Amino acid sequence: MFSRTSYGLRVNVNTLPPSIVSVFAPATVANVGSAFDVLGFALESPGDTVTARRTESNNIIVTKITGDEGRLPLDAEKNTAGVSIRALLRHLASTDPNRYPSVGFELELTKGLPIGSGLGSSSASTVAAVVAANELLGCPLTRAELLPFAMEGERIACGAAHADNVAPCLLGGFALIRSYDPLDVISLPSPASVWVAVVSPHLELKTFDARRVLRRNVSLEAAVAQWGNVAALVAGIYQDDVALMGRSLEDRIIEPERAELVPGYLTAKAAALQAGAAGCSLSGSGPSLFALCASEELARAVSVTIVKSFGALGITATGYTSRVNATGAVVIKRS
Amino acid sequence: MFSRTSYGLRVNVNTLPPSIVSVFAPATVANVGSAFDVLGFALESPGDTVTARRTESNNIIVTKITGDEGRLPLDAEKNTAGVSIRALLRHLASTDPNRYPSVGFELELTKGLPIGSGLGSSSASTVAAVVAANELLGCPLTRAELLPFAMEGERIACGAAHADNVAPCLLGGFALIRSYDPLDVISLPSPASVWVAVVSPHLELKTFDARRVLRRNVSLEAAVAQWGNVAALVAGIYQDDVALMGRSLEDRIIEPERAELVPGYLTAKAAALQAGAAGCSLSGSGPSLFALCASEELARAVSVTIVKSFGALGITATGYTSRVNATGAVVIKRS
Repeated sequence: MFSRTSYGLRVNVNTLPPSIVSVFAPATVANVGSAFDVLGFALESPGDTVTARRTESNNIIVTKITGDEGRLPLDAEKNTAGVSIRALLRHLASTDPNRYPSVGFELELTKGLPIGSGLGSSSASTVAAVVAANELLGCPLTRAELLPFAMEGERIACGAAHADNVAPCLLGGFALIRSYDPLDVISLPSPASVWVAVVSPHLELKTFDARRVLRRNVSLEAAVAQWGNVAALVAGIYQDDVALMGRSLEDRIIEPERAELVPGYLTAKAAALQAGAAGCSLSGSGPSLFALCASEELARAVSVTIVKSFGALGITATGYTSRVNATGAVVIKRS
Repeated sequence: MFSRTSYGLRVNVNTLPPSIVSVFAPATVANVGSAFDVLGFALESPGDTVTARRTESNNIIVTKITGDEGRLPLDAEKNTAGVSIRALLRHLASTDPNRYPSVGFELELTKGLPIGSGLGSSSASTVAAVVAANELLGCPLTRAELLPFAMEGERIACGAAHADNVAPCLLGGFALIRSYDPLDVISLPSPASVWVAVVSPHLELKTFDARRVLRRNVSLEAAVAQWGNVAALVAGIYQDDVALMGRSLEDRIIEPERAELVPGYLTAKAAALQAGAAGCSLSGSGPSLFALCASEELARAVSVTIVKSFGALGITATGYTSRVNATGAVVIKRS
């Protein structure tokens, strides 16, 4: 349980922090089938990279964004990365006003994953930026302690401080959000035998719209079936049982509402299962989808099958295959 | 996954089956807090004992029931134990009509746990009887394969073939029922560090009434919170983390409806938590309650606290303490 009030500052005074850091943060899959709004997991790739330089200017400046096709704001007060770092700095100042009297950052973002695709694009940039800033400050906070600040970026990106993308992006593996108040995030294992096929069709779907289609009430019967599946999904993760995980993705509540928003989804899912995937569902609120597979070879075949299925409808799509990422964001350069 | 159609007969022809067998089957806690209708676990005690003798009469006869205060039917066609054995025999005859041309059983039940208390009383008798019959036939079926026949007893006892008491009673540990059609039961571990305080107030509550109070629809928001708790409860079981299990019992859907049916429940629960229990909820549909504790000593203290809390309202209650039973029903005598 990460308490919002129990952070301590842990600075190693014998080592000077670096002045430039590059951090890679991976794509994530949230709303994992039945486990809508409570579970997410990290992929090994694709992902975003943030290179950050510490300055003494008191400003957070986004100097450059590559790979976003001009869609993200350079204004750091509107950019999820800038907002998260600002929240982190405010917290650090509140615990020790004299430690960082004048500190700023210059950030360069390289987007490696598609924006608005349901693969946690904003989370990846945010997490990479917060991890980089923490490194440049000498790592005053642990990964888990960075979570609330990364969540502030999510508030800008999608209107609510969700944790189901940022938590696995920061911590790796599967992350379970039991509760937001108090924040209670549980790190689950990374099932080593699972390979994931992820396909991102080139369609755009606003998260806001995807939430709006959901009914406010559900039948108790469907809810019970759903939490039976959620429980079995968690058991499958601990048991590294891809078949159990796959069949436990079954989602009687969210998928029927959202499937219609993604043209070709149900056909692609059927093709993935036919090709041997253990289970398949939307990633986040779509339009990307993911399929759990028992081997790398199978995941590649399933990915190709899904891309072809969209292709038959005239929809181009990009396929990826990845294991579940066990470590989350990583520092890839330090100087 | 136990398929209803894949049972094989495995008889060791070198060993003659016993002619009399006694089986102890434990009390079980179903509807484990948030995990309504999908999870149950077995206690080490109390429990019921069935002594069964194989006959060649083709009849199933309940010769004696002790400890039921005359409340259970001796008529084997109405008794859960008799009904379950009859279902088992029908199945065996369908797979090999010549193997058991003429077989019957005489059963003696010793009730060690209170009837109608929410501790799986009917399940314990049923499971003990089915396990005993299987032993007397030379163990043609595995424990897991016996489940559908034990479930037939539940259909008689409570109108539906629930598995959340009979599965943990047969298999031990925590049992998760992901799906009934097809039947998909997952055995979870027995967290070794958990002690359970169970208290049975001397009140009667019909399962049927307890179901009738439940609303048919729930808000999506509450359902999501519930499956977050269910997921965390399963994680707590795998991690043997009693604190996580305890706080994940939080039930926003069923408990608020049922708490009113058990006079003194909310006060007793508050007292249990105050005394140091990690979590507390109704067992089954009540009136018994259970509390998860981090040590045997604490479980004893919590049990006493709960009994006293009911006592203050003039309600007598019986307290038990137990670990989670890792093995389920056991053969205690064979001759």
